[in-house]
Amino acid sequence: MRAVVARQGVLSCEEIAELAPAEGQVLVKTLSCGICGSDLHALHHLDHMAEMGRRTNSVGGGMDPKAGVVFGHEFSAELLDYGPGSSRPLKAGTRVVSMPVIMGPTGGASVGYSNQYPGGFAERMLLSEAMLLEVPNGLSDREAAMTEPFAVGAHAVARAALDEPAAALVIGCGPVGLAVIAGLKARGFGPVTAADFSPARRRMAEVMGADMVVDPARESPHAKWSDMGVPATGLEQMMARMSGQAVKRAIIFECVGVPGVIQSLLEAAPNGAQIVVAGVCMDPDTIEPFLAITKQIDFRFVLGYTAEEFAGTLRQIAEGVIDVKPVITDAVGLAGVADAFRRLADPESQVKIVVEP
Amino acid sequence: MRAVVARQGVLSCEEIAELAPAEGQVLVKTLSCGICGSDLHALHHLDHMAEMGRRTNSVGGGMDPKAGVVFGHEFSAELLDYGPGSSRPLKAGTRVVSMPVIMGPTGGASVGYSNQYPGGFAERMLLSEAMLLEVPNGLSDREAAMTEPFAVGAHAVARAALDEPAAALVIGCGPVGLAVIAGLKARGFGPVTAADFSPARRRMAEVMGADMVVDPARESPHAKWSDMGVPATGLEQMMARMSGQAVKRAIIFECVGVPGVIQSLLEAAPNGAQIVVAGVCMDPDTIEPFLAITKQIDFRFVLGYTAEEFAGTLRQIAEGVIDVKPVITDAVGLAGVADAFRRLADPESQVKIVVEP
Repeated sequence: MRAVVARQGVLSCEEIAELAPAEGQVLVKTLSCGICGSDLHALHHLDHMAEMGRRTNSVGGGMDPKAGVVFGHEFSAELLDYGPGSSRPLKAGTRVVSMPVIMGPTGGASVGYSNQYPGGFAERMLLSEAMLLEVPNGLSDREAAMTEPFAVGAHAVARAALDEPAAALVIGCGPVGLAVIAGLKARGFGPVTAADFSPARRRMAEVMGADMVVDPARESPHAKWSDMGVPATGLEQMMARMSGQAVKRAIIFECVGVPGVIQSLLEAAPNGAQIVVAGVCMDPDTIEPFLAITKQIDFRFVLGYTAEEFAGTLRQIAEGVIDVKPVITDAVGLAGVADAFRRLADPESQVKIVVEP
Repeated sequence: MRAVVARQGVLSCEEIAELAPAEGQVLVKTLSCGICGSDLHALHHLDHMAEMGRRTNSVGGGMDPKAGVVFGHEFSAELLDYGPGSSRPLKAGTRVVSMPVIMGPTGGASVGYSNQYPGGFAERMLLSEAMLLEVPNGLSDREAAMTEPFAVGAHAVARAALDEPAAALVIGCGPVGLAVIAGLKARGFGPVTAADFSPARRRMAEVMGADMVVDPARESPHAKWSDMGVPATGLEQMMARMSGQAVKRAIIFECVGVPGVIQSLLEAAPNGAQIVVAGVCMDPDTIEPFLAITKQIDFRFVLGYTAEEFAGTLRQIAEGVIDVKPVITDAVGLAGVADAFRRLADPESQVKIVVEP
């Protein structure tokens, strides 16, 4: 079958071996598969990703970075066949999504970050039968493929302290930040301010429901706390409490994932803020703990989603609670993947490109 | 009056100006005052402490490090006189404790980290009338002086997620770690494992109620999670959940406060751990956020205590819920303060030395 293989920093469209589902597995035909920021990173830093995955017993930990890897973990697919011993609960032809993890004879693996299990930048994939979720009627292949990236946002939002009075600031409006905004709005939360250097990304943040957007090149996003009703200093908080006001807490979603962002938040965040770190920073980072201590900052580092959050996100997309269509800015075949990776480097032109093999 | 003045890294016993209480203030006679680890740090790094305090609008921010400072913020005292306009609610001679903050005409200041308001290493102090708490009958001056350091532990414990099934590991058994152990035990929490390189500190941790102690030179404290019923990896946690077990969460109290400790915890902590950072690290520190992300770690950085926690700690000490006597390992007069600072560098001989002017 045809697949786009990543090897030593190069993507090439190749013929690879056909797949045969083992017990508990299914063979599916890829319908639509998003290109994730992690894929862009992984193409050029596969060694590092494999090393970090191995150290943390997490995504990509089983990869041999020298061998080829077929990326793609944000997919919808059509069921083709079952492995041996299955009761075949869904008919062939059923459209499905799945969390990109698969159980094999030697343990679990990440579909799309594995030498053994190609991801969605291939004509066909193997998935775990137990993981399949049927795509509701009427939901397009492309929208269904957005379940995975939007589940990331739903998970970050679920881990935030939003039951008390609060206001949210989303730092970075790439796919993760946009999914966080969508997740906040899906639960009726506001106000939400979103910050990104790119005008196109700020417009997209507004489309996803952000109440205010900020260009950090022109003003600090933290200048908006007062507009959102959050007292910034301990003294302002004490005075608000003494006058009987409910004091709103600052909830900050870090959706950038490069060194220095956490420290910049520690410097500028209001006292008592909660920082939900959803940006995946794979390099060492330097912070001043004393800033976190004096401001009594809470951090929640988050990754992925639960099975319930994944299924809930598919339902919210199908029911129109979350409209994912605006973020899908282009679609390409397998031959267009390498060029799509290049185009995604420019935030002005693209948000999410889907691959349809 | 006589006081121990810290100036350019040297402590000297000097005559300083008498104090006159302004409106809202009281003049007190110092009865007993603990030497805090922050005082040991401040003696040699007063410039840095003043700079960090100024940047964060927090403790020590108003200090001129070149001018003299009289340390001492863990005190009990005897009421001598009121400032003008007071209704004099407590009789002169009443024994009191207070949070070490004072309101003056130009705003708040930290008693003991201020050029204007000497701390408890002086014969007399100024305090805010509104902050005074009467020491219950029968509680000694020395025990009452332990309200402040044990309130630090109560606050760290109050900020931890202890309502769900959990087990605790306390890293560092100096006064902060010991106060955390006491705070955990005061609320009936267990199991608690405590780690310190010093045999004397480990014995003290047991006296304060630790269920297990570990010498990190001999074995990783994280080897105890399994004994405490905490599954370490995501896989173990998933298997425990699938077998219907309540999965205990790891709660780690970082009570050391030097660079590198947070990273060592990120490397070794079980998945999903909460790290309560109570150690005050004033230097930049490098972490790998990816470790925190893949393990989905929560951090709570904590400082100080609320007025309620301070008053609650005094009550718990007075009622015998917390026995602070074991940590008070020596008492000195003003002339003995400089030597006491030196002796506190050795964890084998001393935990808390109180100054009784």
